[in-house]
Amino acid sequence: MIELEVKVPCRDLAGLERRLLSLGARHLEDLEQVDMYLSHPVRDFGATDEALRLRRENQRSRITYKGPKLDQDTKMREEIELEVEDLERMSMLLERVGFRPFMKVVKRRRVLELEGVHFCLDRVEGLGDFVEMEYQGQDLGEGKRRINELRTRLELKGNERRSYLELLLEKG
Amino acid sequence: MIELEVKVPCRDLAGLERRLLSLGARHLEDLEQVDMYLSHPVRDFGATDEALRLRRENQRSRITYKGPKLDQDTKMREEIELEVEDLERMSMLLERVGFRPFMKVVKRRRVLELEGVHFCLDRVEGLGDFVEMEYQGQDLGEGKRRINELRTRLELKGNERRSYLELLLEKG
Repeated sequence: MIELEVKVPCRDLAGLERRLLSLGARHLEDLEQVDMYLSHPVRDFGATDEALRLRRENQRSRITYKGPKLDQDTKMREEIELEVEDLERMSMLLERVGFRPFMKVVKRRRVLELEGVHFCLDRVEGLGDFVEMEYQGQDLGEGKRRINELRTRLELKGNERRSYLELLLEKG
Repeated sequence: MIELEVKVPCRDLAGLERRLLSLGARHLEDLEQVDMYLSHPVRDFGATDEALRLRRENQRSRITYKGPKLDQDTKMREEIELEVEDLERMSMLLERVGFRPFMKVVKRRRVLELEGVHFCLDRVEGLGDFVEMEYQGQDLGEGKRRINELRTRLELKGNERRSYLELLLEKG
């Protein structure tokens, strides 16, 4: 399963939401996401463009590995994700084998769906507002077509390839 | 929570089970455990006396970290354990960050309880039969007393400090 993701800064999330709804988008969910990114015992995840993340999302706990970006335009990358019983214990276990918590990203995310594309309207603590368009599927070409068509229709300009983590790190 | 564990080889598991039941032991459960031990990307878990294990036990999936043994007589060590949603995905995620599956341990375990001590009657594929006496609690002295009293009463001789993993590795 490939996840295709395009992110752009957005100055007016409320306006975008109204426009999406008027085009027939469905509201899927509201999430509060608290992410803890971990550093590897010897590998520099910044240099290898990987990430290991522990996420608390509403009441769920998950661990996610993100591989390097595979594509210049989008943020396509391998993702391996699963639920875990307890985030504190998972974190403690990983610390014992040399991983270290090094950056926290907190955001509120409202998710809408239009024509098979998920729109994540994100308010990121310390960074501002963004919209992420996500297409999940096997057909990369089809995903790119749909996302580009919707971006044009919604006049969403820009392409922020950096993750919230990278943006926060650069902000210092 | 400290786990105190003493293991001895046992030539007659069926006889030991009868004897335990005649002393009033309760049968708790029967388990089929398939353990995959992982090697660390740079640390030699053999040298540091640690272990990282993925276990499928009947229908449950868990990950466990075991710290170095803290005691000469028993096998007392820190354990951090939690359930995970999917063992294959957990394994794949760990492989992406440099861990490698390196040894599988398969056993059938019958668990009985007597006077707060768990008796695990183990048939280990490729190794033979053992009994593990386990005490979980805060009071190390009390645990040692109970286990030693029961060992004497049941005439369980020997003290195998090596793990099944170590025994299988030494067997080659």
